[in-house]
Amino acid sequence: MPKPITFDPGDKIKLEDVPARPDVGGWDKKSAAERIEHNTEQSRELAYRLYAENKQTLLLVLQGMDTAGKDGTIRTVTTGINPQSFQIAPFKQPSAEELDHDFLWRVHKAVPRRGNIGIFNRSHYEDVLVVRVHNLVPESEWRRRYDRINEFEKLLTEGHVKIVKCFLHVSKEEQRERLQARLDNPDKRWKFSKGDLAERKLWGDYQAAYEDALNKCNTEHAPWHIIPSDRKWFRNLIVSELLKDALERLDPQFPPSEEGLDGIVVE
Amino acid sequence: MPKPITFDPGDKIKLEDVPARPDVGGWDKKSAAERIEHNTEQSRELAYRLYAENKQTLLLVLQGMDTAGKDGTIRTVTTGINPQSFQIAPFKQPSAEELDHDFLWRVHKAVPRRGNIGIFNRSHYEDVLVVRVHNLVPESEWRRRYDRINEFEKLLTEGHVKIVKCFLHVSKEEQRERLQARLDNPDKRWKFSKGDLAERKLWGDYQAAYEDALNKCNTEHAPWHIIPSDRKWFRNLIVSELLKDALERLDPQFPPSEEGLDGIVVE
Repeated sequence: MPKPITFDPGDKIKLEDVPARPDVGGWDKKSAAERIEHNTEQSRELAYRLYAENKQTLLLVLQGMDTAGKDGTIRTVTTGINPQSFQIAPFKQPSAEELDHDFLWRVHKAVPRRGNIGIFNRSHYEDVLVVRVHNLVPESEWRRRYDRINEFEKLLTEGHVKIVKCFLHVSKEEQRERLQARLDNPDKRWKFSKGDLAERKLWGDYQAAYEDALNKCNTEHAPWHIIPSDRKWFRNLIVSELLKDALERLDPQFPPSEEGLDGIVVE
Repeated sequence: MPKPITFDPGDKIKLEDVPARPDVGGWDKKSAAERIEHNTEQSRELAYRLYAENKQTLLLVLQGMDTAGKDGTIRTVTTGINPQSFQIAPFKQPSAEELDHDFLWRVHKAVPRRGNIGIFNRSHYEDVLVVRVHNLVPESEWRRRYDRINEFEKLLTEGHVKIVKCFLHVSKEEQRERLQARLDNPDKRWKFSKGDLAERKLWGDYQAAYEDALNKCNTEHAPWHIIPSDRKWFRNLIVSELLKDALERLDPQFPPSEEGLDGIVVE
């Protein structure tokens, strides 16, 4: 089964050495779609048990460059599972109120409750990515944040939250094609903004910032998973598999019933 | 197409005159399942447009006696639509913090954002239902709440929120069968609590409270829909149809693209 790329805490990865379009080992679009359907069925049943059990939480964190496919991944791997099982939090530009607090304040509020699967569409990592690239806070400040992030994730995992962090890894050439496709397709043009081109010019800075986030925040308690994402169907397959595996490992159980229910007849 | 029971603001309905198991007019489980699948496909596409448009909100409010099937309805009519389109808020026993505020405080916080479909699994109506039946606040207080609810719903609908309120109407006999089935099925017993029997003894009080909530809060801006719910498949069919129709009436449109994008080549 295709797996994300993982590495041991303490090891260093270089993004330029990680293929965004690796060998797919015999998989193709059709077999991937069948496997995703199978995974969705499994995850639907496991999500129901997780909800019934009401003890544990799964939190999927999705990061990636523009056009890497965060929305498409969420759509593909969650559609077919009961939406009541999910709490999906999109992190956009922080509001004035959010900026009046530390960078983890809004993130902490969005942590999903027990029994649910949370998905962060972007996350606290934006505070060491876009914030760093655009110098929105001084370097001395963002440099400290990696430790704060690791500690925050420790807090969550020592509670009832299992964190699965995914970096959707696309190549610069693939992003070029996807942006051009948005421009050229009248149905997708609304997604395109000239600002996307300005961001693209900062590609190298973003890659460096991602590399640091991956290397500095790849902990035992919350490791990173790099998802080769130049092929959408392969990316979806890997994340769908990850979601199902993570739910299986939580092994949620139906709760025991109340004592003394035998023989009760409802009138 | 099967429709919920609606009535004009100012008219009075008596719940005992409303059939929970009406004539189904040629529909059966199989044809209902096919129609629900069709509706889900339509709703999936409309929900995507709603999200892209990012202007309007749909809010589905679900109320019903214990076992009426709020969870089952949500599961059936939403599974297959992108979970990222939904914000589903279950209203359980209020927390100490929530009780330290007016009864609409926690509800207001849960109002879904633009572009999303919100579902209230229970709602502010609990504050004129369980609260009334158990005398959790004095009568003089809950009597005033019907007006406050109508005004609150007016506030939302004058903004960007379309409210669709559904009362899942089950008969007392059907509830008896469903509670007994929970007891008798080892896989479902965890859902049963002895407290359910105590609540069932208050059936008449709850029906009277529901009748008042339906009659006093059936406004032009937020009318009630009574869903005959003794047959699960028929209940699901009606709510699925309502959801699709409500989205169609919102008629969400893809937003216009930025000016001056013609001829841009991404480098």
